[in-house]
Amino acid sequence: MGDSQRAREQALTEEVLASFEDTANPRLKFVMQALTRHLHAFLREVRLTEQEWARAIDFLTEAGHITDDKRQEFVLLSDVLGASMQTVAMNNEAGQNATEATVLGPFFTEGSPEIPLGGDISAGAAGQPCWVEGTVTGTDGKPVPGARLEVWECDEDGFYDVQYRDDRVAARGHLFTDDEGGYRFWALTPVPYPIPHDGPVGALLEQAGRPHMRAAHLHFKASAPGKRTLTTHIFVRGDEYLHSDAVFGVRQSLIRDFAVQPPGSPTPEGRDLGDATWASARFDIVLAAHDRP
Amino acid sequence: MGDSQRAREQALTEEVLASFEDTANPRLKFVMQALTRHLHAFLREVRLTEQEWARAIDFLTEAGHITDDKRQEFVLLSDVLGASMQTVAMNNEAGQNATEATVLGPFFTEGSPEIPLGGDISAGAAGQPCWVEGTVTGTDGKPVPGARLEVWECDEDGFYDVQYRDDRVAARGHLFTDDEGGYRFWALTPVPYPIPHDGPVGALLEQAGRPHMRAAHLHFKASAPGKRTLTTHIFVRGDEYLHSDAVFGVRQSLIRDFAVQPPGSPTPEGRDLGDATWASARFDIVLAAHDRP
Ligand SMILES: [Fe+2]
Ligand SMILES: [Fe+2]
Repeated sequence: MGDSQRAREQALTEEVLASFEDTANPRLKFVMQALTRHLHAFLREVRLTEQEWARAIDFLTEAGHITDDKRQEFVLLSDVLGASMQTVAMNNEAGQNATEATVLGPFFTEGSPEIPLGGDISAGAAGQPCWVEGTVTGTDGKPVPGARLEVWECDEDGFYDVQYRDDRVAARGHLFTDDEGGYRFWALTPVPYPIPHDGPVGALLEQAGRPHMRAAHLHFKASAPGKRTLTTHIFVRGDEYLHSDAVFGVRQSLIRDFAVQPPGSPTPEGRDLGDATWASARFDIVLAAHDRP
Repeated sequence: MGDSQRAREQALTEEVLASFEDTANPRLKFVMQALTRHLHAFLREVRLTEQEWARAIDFLTEAGHITDDKRQEFVLLSDVLGASMQTVAMNNEAGQNATEATVLGPFFTEGSPEIPLGGDISAGAAGQPCWVEGTVTGTDGKPVPGARLEVWECDEDGFYDVQYRDDRVAARGHLFTDDEGGYRFWALTPVPYPIPHDGPVGALLEQAGRPHMRAAHLHFKASAPGKRTLTTHIFVRGDEYLHSDAVFGVRQSLIRDFAVQPPGSPTPEGRDLGDATWASARFDIVLAAHDRP
């Protein structure tokens, strides 16, 4: 590439940057000018061909057309490019000893049922019963009574309740910590599940030789007055997808032992599980103080 | 931001890059890894907030839903970010004295009517008659007889034929250069027109205080055996949008005088225009040799 061509390309980038000069909102101006710089740097580094440009337009068009109320291909694209997790990481700087955050994912719903301490969130969803308990404290070590915990997960077939065509509400709920900041509930042992992969993002993963599986996890969202709301998961030690989670959500600090208990062993809350096996896990949550009141 | 936070963000970027390591197609691997690096660099530079991330997802979703057979909001987005023009610029390096390329735009159609030399492309489209003539030569100065020229433009209301709800074909056609490489036809004096601005891209331009107008132009696509196909426009000297073309398509070398002729003056081909004014413009096209056979 000659100097005059380089100058011509640089001049075009400058022209686009200048076009955002009159943006009234200073943050929008900053973001759009940065986007322009990075986008043009990308195009110029890879010397994008006109055929590749057309393929990119087709990709975005397909993603737009498969996206509806129940399916979000752009979130999925952001997820598999690590953009979602990077945004979470930047907005939840690991402070002191606070629990790390990870992606919210597309399956959280408002209005989950309240579960009493020691109750069962599964509501008939199939899977191995799993006892989960822990505490919620501040970074100062003090217990947080009355913290609200939202928990949700898929069933043993890898589907969340909202992925079924009926209106079931299962394997999700919310509960509140007791006076000592403790909590406990029955759930299901998490299993890995595929992200929706019948669209353009799935085709991209296929071409890249990347698995479309999420490492097994149980979602948590923890909130309490004066604390920064925490959205996170716990992962299952030994899970085969811990090193290839499709959305880069795994943090080492969030991996837990899910200890399988022998059939017939005594259960918490005296639950009668016959001769079924069950598992148990512990997750002590540490919430940072609210930094943006 | 502390060192540990910086390391955490960098590690995430590296993890995403590594996920593309097994991509079978080396070009796809290169492009996806470059995209990952530039995307993460952008996110980290602007410290994107979770609210802004959600806004970006909404923007792409709206763009996807407004896009159909007749409307391409992703092309428009690429256009207003200068990505389309940059791709054109990179793939059509200005070689020697060849005519510069510019964007194709969304209004080209295959199968335009053939127009004899000296004929009229307007086919009833409203506007000031305009005589256009010139030559097609190679960069060696030799005339190119039999070169195919596709030409198309909007009417005086700023609409291309395909934007009307009927099936009209107007203000477009193709013709072939004569034995001396010459060409000539009647068209309409180009006028500025708005890009579609009732979607998310229009809203972005509005917030950025950017005009949504394209500088007046007449599209050309020129092809001939042994020559690189050229897609370009000519622009109208003195047009008010030459310095704020919404898609950054203007090249100085493509601006032409459109000389307005007095009413009643003798017309080429003896066309009877009564006492209407008309214009004339000249565009000598220089085609580069085909570099990718
Ligand atoms: Fe999940
Ligand atoms: Fe146009």
